[in-house]
Amino acid sequence: MDKKTIRLLMPQWQGGNNPHYSFGAELLAWLAPENGQPLIEVPVQAYAGTPLENENGVYGRTQLLEQLKAARHLISAHQPDRIVMFGGDCLVEQAPFAYLNERYRGDLGLLWIDAHSDLMRIPGYDYGHTLPLGNLLGEGEEEFASFVTTPLKPENVFIAGLAKPAQQEAEIISKTLQEKGIAIPDDTELLKRLGIRTAGAEELAESMDSVKTWIKESGIKYLAIHLDLDVLDPAAFRSLLFANPESPYLYSPKGTMQIPRLLELMHLASKETEVVGLGITEHMPWDAITLKSMLNSFPLLANHI
Amino acid sequence: MDKKTIRLLMPQWQGGNNPHYSFGAELLAWLAPENGQPLIEVPVQAYAGTPLENENGVYGRTQLLEQLKAARHLISAHQPDRIVMFGGDCLVEQAPFAYLNERYRGDLGLLWIDAHSDLMRIPGYDYGHTLPLGNLLGEGEEEFASFVTTPLKPENVFIAGLAKPAQQEAEIISKTLQEKGIAIPDDTELLKRLGIRTAGAEELAESMDSVKTWIKESGIKYLAIHLDLDVLDPAAFRSLLFANPESPYLYSPKGTMQIPRLLELMHLASKETEVVGLGITEHMPWDAITLKSMLNSFPLLANHI
Repeated sequence: MDKKTIRLLMPQWQGGNNPHYSFGAELLAWLAPENGQPLIEVPVQAYAGTPLENENGVYGRTQLLEQLKAARHLISAHQPDRIVMFGGDCLVEQAPFAYLNERYRGDLGLLWIDAHSDLMRIPGYDYGHTLPLGNLLGEGEEEFASFVTTPLKPENVFIAGLAKPAQQEAEIISKTLQEKGIAIPDDTELLKRLGIRTAGAEELAESMDSVKTWIKESGIKYLAIHLDLDVLDPAAFRSLLFANPESPYLYSPKGTMQIPRLLELMHLASKETEVVGLGITEHMPWDAITLKSMLNSFPLLANHI
Repeated sequence: MDKKTIRLLMPQWQGGNNPHYSFGAELLAWLAPENGQPLIEVPVQAYAGTPLENENGVYGRTQLLEQLKAARHLISAHQPDRIVMFGGDCLVEQAPFAYLNERYRGDLGLLWIDAHSDLMRIPGYDYGHTLPLGNLLGEGEEEFASFVTTPLKPENVFIAGLAKPAQQEAEIISKTLQEKGIAIPDDTELLKRLGIRTAGAEELAESMDSVKTWIKESGIKYLAIHLDLDVLDPAAFRSLLFANPESPYLYSPKGTMQIPRLLELMHLASKETEVVGLGITEHMPWDAITLKSMLNSFPLLANHI
């Protein structure tokens, strides 16, 4: 029988407190090849010019929880076998991957391709997009995690492309975080306690054997793949928070993965498992944002003319 | 009576011999604000994997002429008062601006915002996108220029943002051109003979008075504006031929205009004249091209799955 695949467009921005994530999601969905999959939009409260409030340690908690529930309702309505998610900030991944783990009886594998582990709260940086992987494992933030009825098994998770900043970058980041009163995130202990395997971009550039071994040893049959585009080297792909042409981003380490390596990783995953989930997040297309804004003010095009 | 404005989408790539111009045009049209103007697509022969032929000094001459005529037929069918053109390579501007100059009885003003004058053939670099302004003035390339029944008056043309490379850049460009057997373009004499006014980005950053004076002295009432996005500083806007993240472009000088100056220039033009034409060209959205190509090969999204 044919597998049923749906595409979700979730232009969520509250998890990174940056309205540009909404536009990044829309452009992402527009760029994706047509292949007959239905595209379902998750209702997201658009940015209305008012800043989000810090609600008990998470900016925009109420909106984020509403949107999480809306995404889950839409998925439950369709009961798909496979889900493609176009985000939006990273937190969009929670609803589809939690559903898929239920759908595959708690045996879902998750390849988390990301420069950051997204496992935990970072005091002083109270944004939801640091939480999704933690929530999916039953860790993360209590209220968000409570919506994950079947947490992922830690041995079924692999984080690929985790960034380790070089000394100079690390010093700049530490300085910025201290000045802003943000805790310096350290996920080492949590990764160790949970026993989650990881590999940095440099290790993967030499060999993808660690991923292959993980798939084999954990017996991954059904796989979801999370791609945070910020895993990529911003010199090669610049539509990232890190690569704002107007100001550098100094809060966390940049990704260093090269595009051919990412494609290889995707190819390996498809070859060794049945991919049932794919989420793409944190698309921040600076040039398109700039051009859209310019066009809005040009003669003949401006709406008020 | 209401003025009739149409939008043309002309995904022409042959004038720069680079198929990415087609995608750049489509993305540009998608980014433009909706305001009820009809969007009419000019038929363009898509890149079919076969290289263009150099036909008597212009690559893809036959296709370019066919497309020029098609654009003109569509414009003639609609008889608009105002035209917005989404390119494509720079040569897309010929049909709409030639029509507008007829429509406004030979009195059209033309603000050519471009790092390059686009006035003439460059032997050894036989691409149509070096020709449009020349053709519109009855110069340029004979066969293409023959379709301009009412040439623009040179005193009605102003080139804004014309790049003058710094010494180091000039040396690199000279070396590249010599190695490739391309003539070093020199439009100084032609500009002088025609008496066309110009201002570089640096001059305009100090003052826009030269543009204001030109509008006044030439008595420009109806104005068309050409924008080659490559007039912009690629450090601020990177969706340009010059800013390929994989390899630098060393054939001609880069633009240096800053975005706020471009907006000021557009604002000035709208204030002092009635803008009846706007063309936007040479959009080369590297990241979107890369992302589209990645998405095409990802699991669940690839068309062949």
